Amino acid sequence: MTPFRKPIQVEEVIGKIWEYYRGGKNEIVRLRDSLDRFLAEDIIATTDIPRFDKSPYDGFALRSIDVKEATREHIIELKVIDRIGAGMISKKKVQPFEAIRIMTGAQMPDGCDAVIMLELAKEMIKNGETYIQVNRSLKQGDNISFQGEDIAKGKKIIEAGMKINPGIQSILATFGYSQVKVKRPPIIGVFAAGSELLDAEDALVPGKIRNSNSYMLCGQIERSGGKPYHYGIMPDSLEDGYTAIKEVLEEVDIIVTTGGVSVGDFDYMPIIYEKLQANILCNKIAMRPGSVTTIAEVDGKLLFGLSGNPSACYVGFELFLRPLIRDILGSKKPFAKKVKAVLGEDFPKANPFTRFVRSKLSFQDTRLVAKPIGLDKSSVIYSLGLADCLLILPGGSRGFQKGTEVEVLLLEDQEGGEIY
Amino acid sequence: MTPFRKPIQVEEVIGKIWEYYRGGKNEIVRLRDSLDRFLAEDIIATTDIPRFDKSPYDGFALRSIDVKEATREHIIELKVIDRIGAGMISKKKVQPFEAIRIMTGAQMPDGCDAVIMLELAKEMIKNGETYIQVNRSLKQGDNISFQGEDIAKGKKIIEAGMKINPGIQSILATFGYSQVKVKRPPIIGVFAAGSELLDAEDALVPGKIRNSNSYMLCGQIERSGGKPYHYGIMPDSLEDGYTAIKEVLEEVDIIVTTGGVSVGDFDYMPIIYEKLQANILCNKIAMRPGSVTTIAEVDGKLLFGLSGNPSACYVGFELFLRPLIRDILGSKKPFAKKVKAVLGEDFPKANPFTRFVRSKLSFQDTRLVAKPIGLDKSSVIYSLGLADCLLILPGGSRGFQKGTEVEVLLLEDQEGGEIY
Repeated sequence: MTPFRKPIQVEEVIGKIWEYYRGGKNEIVRLRDSLDRFLAEDIIATTDIPRFDKSPYDGFALRSIDVKEATREHIIELKVIDRIGAGMISKKKVQPFEAIRIMTGAQMPDGCDAVIMLELAKEMIKNGETYIQVNRSLKQGDNISFQGEDIAKGKKIIEAGMKINPGIQSILATFGYSQVKVKRPPIIGVFAAGSELLDAEDALVPGKIRNSNSYMLCGQIERSGGKPYHYGIMPDSLEDGYTAIKEVLEEVDIIVTTGGVSVGDFDYMPIIYEKLQANILCNKIAMRPGSVTTIAEVDGKLLFGLSGNPSACYVGFELFLRPLIRDILGSKKPFAKKVKAVLGEDFPKANPFTRFVRSKLSFQDTRLVAKPIGLDKSSVIYSLGLADCLLILPGGSRGFQKGTEVEVLLLEDQEGGEIY
Repeated sequence: MTPFRKPIQVEEVIGKIWEYYRGGKNEIVRLRDSLDRFLAEDIIATTDIPRFDKSPYDGFALRSIDVKEATREHIIELKVIDRIGAGMISKKKVQPFEAIRIMTGAQMPDGCDAVIMLELAKEMIKNGETYIQVNRSLKQGDNISFQGEDIAKGKKIIEAGMKINPGIQSILATFGYSQVKVKRPPIIGVFAAGSELLDAEDALVPGKIRNSNSYMLCGQIERSGGKPYHYGIMPDSLEDGYTAIKEVLEEVDIIVTTGGVSVGDFDYMPIIYEKLQANILCNKIAMRPGSVTTIAEVDGKLLFGLSGNPSACYVGFELFLRPLIRDILGSKKPFAKKVKAVLGEDFPKANPFTRFVRSKLSFQDTRLVAKPIGLDKSSVIYSLGLADCLLILPGGSRGFQKGTEVEVLLLEDQEGGEIY
């Protein structure tokens, strides 16, 4: 049985997936547990910044009117009546020709309207009292950071959908978000299908190889912000495989399988889809690797049947599942960021389908260079570990020359991008 | 009291820190918990890849000698005596003019030395037995992936010190590393010092502001691969502050404080260092922001006294603590990756010290462009959330023009780089 499969384009696949999108749910986490989560609400300035008029320097707060006529020739003396550090409030109110010693960040004392920097005022003790000598005039407002001059209360600071990094955590703390509303990660069940598979901890037996794809997929899910449920290797019989998928569909938001979607004699995933009465969105995609990818829908939940070939499985995840996960997490830019780079070496082989080639970026002067890896047999196995981008080579009848400008999808970027 | 502080260069600071470096300890984690951990051992190929001679296609395994003379005019018929999928071993041994139907990835049956692809052999049933007709010759070894042709057992695949990504997890699984030896994250205690500080959950009171730096630092520690212990705001009195630091030194590998290191009247960190009889490695660094950074050592443990200014605190962490953490984690490239970029806008202000300016990268065609953010007051608070690199502007008497080639340190890169 080799059913006819019509290849469809990557963009069309994305369109079909998006029809079944359901928005993610929110949850509350402690600020200190929020790194790498996705904001489910805008961060609003809950106070002015600065919160109050304050001194940006160590110095003396004074009344500018008192030193209006101060010059080198006409020195004016002020009596220092208090001393405050950041966080302290002076209980005293300055009278004419009085000043308060003030440290950086402290709130301006009542009655003062300017600050003279520490090193510009000469401090002295007379009869046990402290005085400063001022030899220059100051204007009202000199050396004051005014309330709200950086940010006015109520302003939107960071948009919902951003991934929380340390800088955003600092902003959250500044505005008192000790609890943060974030998106709940979608739960994604992972199965590896294939009668040849052993688990990573199993002893080797003849003819079998270890399942590596499901561990990789769990890592990719985690890296994308989802929560993987690792179900390991699918039961060997069609009936048990069907039951396993059927049960797991109740527990998870999305199912990903790797392997078993081809047209080989023992590839039973197509039959499972049939038994599930799944709505097949596509079973062949015009891309390399990964053309046998199948995407189906059962009761509004999506099933991704990725190829059992490690490279195809990797690419299929990054192209279709990562953006879906990021979208559920509320990202405004759920797709991998696409940038231009210079092709770092010749790629002579032509292919009618668009290719996504695992590659490594480097920087030559200010230019971004992408070099394919995993082209020779020995590096296929490394390439998944070393790749940090996918080089997009449009389908056609020609190969590509070193130095050509190409597009790449960044795999480790956190900002994301628009649709491919 | 304004003690004289001699500024030293960033490189010199790194050198001093490195003298006190102590290698990190190892621990074992499950493969599925290993994402983003740092490998403490090389990954060695524990088997050949492929593990055995196998078929790379769906087809029929046969004896090439039987079809040596097959042509379109001279069709040769073979009897199909078995059918195997990946992971299965045929118990039968082919005799002359026999073949075995074989699926992609299955081990070559005994006696067979070539595979003909499914679509090139014509299958037919005669008297209830299956036969194929072959109309072309095959050579010994045709369409076989040979044991070890990709990777020979014993080869080093991935070096210790690498951060584990999903591709590396796949390699670990392939070679049966179901338990992975990784570096134990160093434990880093974080204190915020400053009498003006409230915690993120505290109600606001006059003159005080919320502590945001310690949350940011915990996020930076996590992002670097360390384990933050958040001790919140330091006790207000010198004696209690001293006791807190003294106690925490027993619990953690490194202490980071933010604030209180300046020369203001209420900055008591210098006095605490004195009471601890700390060996001060530096208390002023020739950089902006963050020149008041103090680094000290007590009983072989390092104390980093970062500025209370959020930008200075952020930069100080990335320049000094991140590489130290990455080094403890065994990274061969513990420093932030330094690349060249084009300056995206004029930066007219000159400064005698090297500046590290929070910036955002973009790609214009194949060129990397770095644009400073946080230069105007209103964006200081955002800039920490949006920055993805630090622009390095060498000290001097001139500003910098848009279009100049500059160096930047990447903040979200995972590969790392050599010393700045």
